[in-house]
Amino acid sequence: MPEIMVFAAAGRTVEQKRGLARDLTEAMVKNFGVPAESVTVQIVESALDSKAKGGVLFSDR
Amino acid sequence: MPEIMVFAAAGRTVEQKRGLARDLTEAMVKNFGVPAESVTVQIVESALDSKAKGGVLFSDR
Amino acid sequence: MPEIMVFAAAGRTVEQKRGLARDLTEAMVKNFGVPAESVTVQIVESALDSKAKGGVLFSDR
Amino acid sequence: MPEIMVFAAAGRTVEQKRGLARDLTEAMVKNFGVPAESVTVQIVESALDSKAKGGVLFSDR
Amino acid sequence: MPEIMVFAAAGRTVEQKRGLARDLTEAMVKNFGVPAESVTVQIVESALDSKAKGGVLFSDR
Amino acid sequence: MPEIMVFAAAGRTVEQKRGLARDLTEAMVKNFGVPAESVTVQIVESALDSKAKGGVLFSDR
Repeated sequence: MPEIMVFAAAGRTVEQKRGLARDLTEAMVKNFGVPAESVTVQIVESALDSKAKGGVLFSDR
Repeated sequence: MPEIMVFAAAGRTVEQKRGLARDLTEAMVKNFGVPAESVTVQIVESALDSKAKGGVLFSDR
Repeated sequence: MPEIMVFAAAGRTVEQKRGLARDLTEAMVKNFGVPAESVTVQIVESALDSKAKGGVLFSDR
Repeated sequence: MPEIMVFAAAGRTVEQKRGLARDLTEAMVKNFGVPAESVTVQIVESALDSKAKGGVLFSDR
Repeated sequence: MPEIMVFAAAGRTVEQKRGLARDLTEAMVKNFGVPAESVTVQIVESALDSKAKGGVLFSDR
Repeated sequence: MPEIMVFAAAGRTVEQKRGLARDLTEAMVKNFGVPAESVTVQIVESALDSKAKGGVLFSDR
């Protein structure tokens, strides 16, 4: 309300995720005028062999 | 057809998931008038350090 | 927290959506033990020519 | 089972969507060995002012 | 790579979406160290009668 | 741009995923006329006890 789903390859540190969640939420508050507590962020990670760009798995790049 | 995606923090038991899948499907059948067999439920779980509310990771709360 | 996304073909009435949102939320509260106010439901509707089963668009079936 | 969600900017023709749904389903049947009837495809279209690359809305590019 | 999907109730202005897309992308670049051009943002809007919190449609609140 | 999210039960081999990513991307290039490099595929896998059809978990079927 709103919800932010981040689809990413696995492998980020907790520090990276912590910063991302904070900054994405801030961006939502600033631009959509919603309270921070109403914003949910979920990072949906997939293994490198489950994500592809240009038809090639990240594990093969 | 329809598909129900549940985005949740990890940590539920199989019993909880079993009950949820059953009841969500029943709710769909009852309200949308579709056959149960056409309903798919997927619970997309993320670790506590990959989900945040109010800009704060669940693992930090 | 958790978030429920329903991917459905367009064409349901407000009554159907109202009942679905209520019952899906109730199923979440009952099975996952979360407060109702923490549950978000979003119905993502697509036109009949944007959804397919068995490789055939709903608008062609 | 599996479900394929395509997130795209609006503006494709029915012919394009028809071909895409058919070919995506075929790819799933061929590679995952599932029956075609178990494959759902939903194209989630957003207006050009609701999708961005590089931080710039498609309607501004 | 990564992709950000924002699930929101309809009704934001183009200015709000433009700012959000820019700031979400910036947050991703800063925290995950990816090039801006690799970041996609899609705002998936649903009508007020297709989104609920606490089991109640936004159109009924 | 577009992004393809595949929601599937876990358990496929890398070979299956490699082929799927390649063929889904090809289907997108052929039908939507986009460059292959602009297509992202992410396979979102859930454990067999987190996916259901007809209200029954795959782990119970």
